[in-house]
Amino acid sequence: MRLTDPDRLFPVDAKLRDLARSLHDSVKDLPILSPHGHCDPSWFAENARFPNPAELFVIPDHYVFRMLVSQGVAMTDLGVPRVDGGATETDPRRVWRLFAENFHLFRGTPSSMWLNHSFEHVFGLDVPLSAETADHYYDHIEAKLAQDAFRPRSLFERFNIELLATTEGALDDLRWHRQIRESGWTGRVITTYRPDTVVDPEFEGFAQNVAAFGELTGEDTATWAGYLAAHRTRRAYFQELGATASDHGHPTARTENMTPAEAEALFAKVMSGDFSPEEADAFRGQMLTEMARMSLDDGLTLQIHAGSRRNHHPGVFAVHGRDKGFDIPGRTDYVAALQPLLGAVGMEPHLRIILFTLDETVYSRELAPLAGVYPALRLGPPWWFFDSYEGIRRFREATTETCGFYNTAGFNDDTRAFCSIPARHDVARRSDCAYLATLVGTGRLRETDAFEVAHDLTYRLAKDAYAL
Amino acid sequence: MRLTDPDRLFPVDAKLRDLARSLHDSVKDLPILSPHGHCDPSWFAENARFPNPAELFVIPDHYVFRMLVSQGVAMTDLGVPRVDGGATETDPRRVWRLFAENFHLFRGTPSSMWLNHSFEHVFGLDVPLSAETADHYYDHIEAKLAQDAFRPRSLFERFNIELLATTEGALDDLRWHRQIRESGWTGRVITTYRPDTVVDPEFEGFAQNVAAFGELTGEDTATWAGYLAAHRTRRAYFQELGATASDHGHPTARTENMTPAEAEALFAKVMSGDFSPEEADAFRGQMLTEMARMSLDDGLTLQIHAGSRRNHHPGVFAVHGRDKGFDIPGRTDYVAALQPLLGAVGMEPHLRIILFTLDETVYSRELAPLAGVYPALRLGPPWWFFDSYEGIRRFREATTETCGFYNTAGFNDDTRAFCSIPARHDVARRSDCAYLATLVGTGRLRETDAFEVAHDLTYRLAKDAYAL
Amino acid sequence: MRLTDPDRLFPVDAKLRDLARSLHDSVKDLPILSPHGHCDPSWFAENARFPNPAELFVIPDHYVFRMLVSQGVAMTDLGVPRVDGGATETDPRRVWRLFAENFHLFRGTPSSMWLNHSFEHVFGLDVPLSAETADHYYDHIEAKLAQDAFRPRSLFERFNIELLATTEGALDDLRWHRQIRESGWTGRVITTYRPDTVVDPEFEGFAQNVAAFGELTGEDTATWAGYLAAHRTRRAYFQELGATASDHGHPTARTENMTPAEAEALFAKVMSGDFSPEEADAFRGQMLTEMARMSLDDGLTLQIHAGSRRNHHPGVFAVHGRDKGFDIPGRTDYVAALQPLLGAVGMEPHLRIILFTLDETVYSRELAPLAGVYPALRLGPPWWFFDSYEGIRRFREATTETCGFYNTAGFNDDTRAFCSIPARHDVARRSDCAYLATLVGTGRLRETDAFEVAHDLTYRLAKDAYAL
Repeated sequence: MRLTDPDRLFPVDAKLRDLARSLHDSVKDLPILSPHGHCDPSWFAENARFPNPAELFVIPDHYVFRMLVSQGVAMTDLGVPRVDGGATETDPRRVWRLFAENFHLFRGTPSSMWLNHSFEHVFGLDVPLSAETADHYYDHIEAKLAQDAFRPRSLFERFNIELLATTEGALDDLRWHRQIRESGWTGRVITTYRPDTVVDPEFEGFAQNVAAFGELTGEDTATWAGYLAAHRTRRAYFQELGATASDHGHPTARTENMTPAEAEALFAKVMSGDFSPEEADAFRGQMLTEMARMSLDDGLTLQIHAGSRRNHHPGVFAVHGRDKGFDIPGRTDYVAALQPLLGAVGMEPHLRIILFTLDETVYSRELAPLAGVYPALRLGPPWWFFDSYEGIRRFREATTETCGFYNTAGFNDDTRAFCSIPARHDVARRSDCAYLATLVGTGRLRETDAFEVAHDLTYRLAKDAYAL
Repeated sequence: MRLTDPDRLFPVDAKLRDLARSLHDSVKDLPILSPHGHCDPSWFAENARFPNPAELFVIPDHYVFRMLVSQGVAMTDLGVPRVDGGATETDPRRVWRLFAENFHLFRGTPSSMWLNHSFEHVFGLDVPLSAETADHYYDHIEAKLAQDAFRPRSLFERFNIELLATTEGALDDLRWHRQIRESGWTGRVITTYRPDTVVDPEFEGFAQNVAAFGELTGEDTATWAGYLAAHRTRRAYFQELGATASDHGHPTARTENMTPAEAEALFAKVMSGDFSPEEADAFRGQMLTEMARMSLDDGLTLQIHAGSRRNHHPGVFAVHGRDKGFDIPGRTDYVAALQPLLGAVGMEPHLRIILFTLDETVYSRELAPLAGVYPALRLGPPWWFFDSYEGIRRFREATTETCGFYNTAGFNDDTRAFCSIPARHDVARRSDCAYLATLVGTGRLRETDAFEVAHDLTYRLAKDAYAL
Repeated sequence: MRLTDPDRLFPVDAKLRDLARSLHDSVKDLPILSPHGHCDPSWFAENARFPNPAELFVIPDHYVFRMLVSQGVAMTDLGVPRVDGGATETDPRRVWRLFAENFHLFRGTPSSMWLNHSFEHVFGLDVPLSAETADHYYDHIEAKLAQDAFRPRSLFERFNIELLATTEGALDDLRWHRQIRESGWTGRVITTYRPDTVVDPEFEGFAQNVAAFGELTGEDTATWAGYLAAHRTRRAYFQELGATASDHGHPTARTENMTPAEAEALFAKVMSGDFSPEEADAFRGQMLTEMARMSLDDGLTLQIHAGSRRNHHPGVFAVHGRDKGFDIPGRTDYVAALQPLLGAVGMEPHLRIILFTLDETVYSRELAPLAGVYPALRLGPPWWFFDSYEGIRRFREATTETCGFYNTAGFNDDTRAFCSIPARHDVARRSDCAYLATLVGTGRLRETDAFEVAHDLTYRLAKDAYAL
């Protein structure tokens, strides 16, 4: 029995389906470019085996455990670690069974497609997961994980990954990336500069972080000039370990374009610890423009991931910490918010600023009109809850007519679930091919052009957007 | 001639259509659960005949008369009653003819589907309604209404309604529900606790309402403690007459989680009559959290119907009063608005809070992410203007990928038009089956699972969400 | 080779496609009504030949050059004029080649459909535009433009245009329209009253404009009464030259309904030059209501085009001026914003107010519910970035179920690109027929009704909405 339909996500009309399949055939074996994600670089540095099925598929993946939580399953029954030191389930098989019993909750979701894809195509399973098959699954996956062919580097090669970017904080020593380099392994795993801890005055320990930032870079980060110099230094260090991009996860897309004197004064204010939420927000906004200016010099692509209201439930945050499925999108304005940044650097033809959103309403109203005229802008692929068939369809339908294909940036998997990488790229490639086939079938795109666009969406646009 | 297509709302592709039809065949005879609506309980208590076609289909249904008004027909020509005592059309046949002449205005609307469904399947009509057939329709329906088989209880049974919930204000004496109970009739008609008149400080006569509330319950509603006790008492009374849910129609989804002292002080403020709109809004918000806490004790499901800006035209409100088609949705935030409530009780696995919206933009951005992680939350079906084929399709496409099917609450007809109940459930069942067939046809759902989900969406999820 | 598919935009299912084709056959030869647009009336007054391909297709069309700009092409390399007196490309062939080299950027966009439609159906070209065919195209089009059959009046007739409205400012002397009248040519080209320069206190030179407005009309525009009288006088003059509508391009849909004394005081304030942005906005809002009141007397249809944040990049505005592709939509509220206007005149059955939006989220949440009940309101067709297949589909899907077809206003091309007029109406007619065929195929509309609706959407509704 197959867990996945060979024609999944293609249009149902026979003629369109044939065309979508042909388009997909032309791109399905292209290597994977994964220029934005959250895999752990230690996997590839150490190349240790993955511990067990529960730690591979359930415990670290908030896409998965949040769905069980939503139906009343306790996080601690799923083995999700506690920051408060309390007890949590430690038997991975019990976690796995709980997951298996509730697998019906994922019906109709991309998680279900990704998981079934991994089960079938990575692990060779051929019966649906359920309470009845839970132990069979556990034993089967466990046995595979013990094989060398299922260690991280082997999977990386089997997945046909040409490049994988991880994301590290500005204070990270990048030891795992150095270890990968020094190991002689040829897999290309690069880092990304993510300076939130030293850019967001509201981050826990901001002032200490900035002080540590100074020590790390040898710059006097007590001054505005030194603080900016520390970023430049650190960006260069990240570039040594492959970085081609920075990433910024702000609650809003607010930017500022202050005079140097204003910026310096605001820096002093936020460093003093005595600042308002408004001042913190303004500082984050100013730093996006500063980062863009540094990008003009060092060529890093600037990624703006805006719009997540993090840690929505204070109790869960206190017990389990960040990234536990309680990050909820909110309305996000881009037109006014980005104007200072775009006024400063938006017309630069060699700058690359990639915009991501969790607010679909801005695709047609704001993002496509902006990307359709500013040379510096590219639209990132549908992010997070929108990394799905419908999410991709709505993104293409809402943006293509206004900014075309060539102001978009290819696909990102943005995942911390390593085995889902091929599955996610598969969904994206199929969804794009389905869209292209529909355009051809309705006379909106020439067939020969569709093949070229399919290749561009799968490969070339990511290379260009991230300077890979 | 048929007024309705036997394959209506199914996908046009032959294979998908066959599957959708099979799915629909498996659920079409399931009994109707109608856990939220606005039918008049006196119909079932008295079991009197419906007066005439105009009073059955036109005069009380703002879905219908608003469309004629939008094209310049005067409400008074349609017999809509006036609260100012002025004249209105009293000849139901003239009202009916005006309606029939303008029936083309409903082309492409769900009202057209519901009306044609009632005309054909309830009354056995077989020619389209138009100016030419107006009198034929009138006479035909009038003759049917005179038969016992068309009295409310007979239709209730013929419609295969397992349960029908009406909605009564906190001050209602529930006499009709008592009369139904005492009549020995076995149809299950239950009430719902809707306390807006004693919860919204901006409601006409709020202070007097709260005083009456005290008299009714024997509690001292001049105090915060007594006021809360009155709610508990009244909820228990509503539960005696079947209530399994409360319902709250606030302009926004704002909630508060004040300390008891703060809440008590605010209650005193709003009772004094000297309060700001902001304080009224905060009080409504606090009461949602209080109601949720009471639900933890008594098990009532909490329904939040937010986002309608009521009585948009002051002149029409002055002449004709509430519920006359001038309730217009507005942008509604849920992420910040619900945080106090969810912080207080959102992680309770046995609580049921059902969210409704008139702002589709929140489906994918806010509601599905919230429902996809908080155990207490379920998403209500598409409401009001979205109770339609396209409305249901967009709801499923925007929510399923993020929160699955099992964080939704089945279908509500929410109607005051009794004959439209089977039509509305028919549209919902067909629309859901069309969606499920599309998922199967594109490899996103296993066919056997689709049959199970179809049953769940039609029957089981409503039972669970409303504890029926 | 064909550049356009004869079945473009029709559904792919064979049965639906046949029906869509039949519907389209029934309307494709209806004359074009173009009641809102920005063609230059001097074309039809002078009937001079169009200068060259670049000036016909590229230089004046911000839909076109913005896409090239978004990929780093300089506006000056495209010959876009500068207001600052700097140099710009003057060789039209070089501009054309640059356009041709980048034609792939338009894949999947409506611009691509419009351009290919013009190339094939107006100019008879039969190879795709590319770098290789650039000169062939240039020479071919250039040769055609030299023929009398390609002069504006001949094209107008060939395009089967029954009526074309242009848009002129309140201070315009309408000389071209007078010249058209006096020429004896029978083509019906009318003007539209667009008073932004004398209504928006933030427009450059507002006070001088109002003074000039007084001179032009013989009214004392230093007083509120005289200022209103000047509008009445000028509207009458525009009506002499055919105007049936006024048009208002405000950043928001805000309206006000002040007392005469309040309005007079605000007029004095904005005329003094010492006013806040809030006061300017309130004044614009009051003037919408004043214009609606004048419409009650003189019968002009009131068009509200709200929601564009104009001239987003200050540098581009300084160098190139207005209408250069840097007008970006923003969130726009209608429910609260229009309430003062609608409270004043919304129930008038003979008034026509047409609403346009660049914020799709308001279709189902705000505009359709408003238009579905207020007799004065009609919904304008999808505007600007939404004048496209997907834009039209989403508009119909989001509005029809709530306000039907008969509260919409037919199609507008809103273009300054003359040759795109038949192409845009073709896209609109095909998109509407595709939608109607889908409704019929899914049992939501009777086939005979679909033919009537197709005719109404193509022809009758525009006649009614604009009193043509």
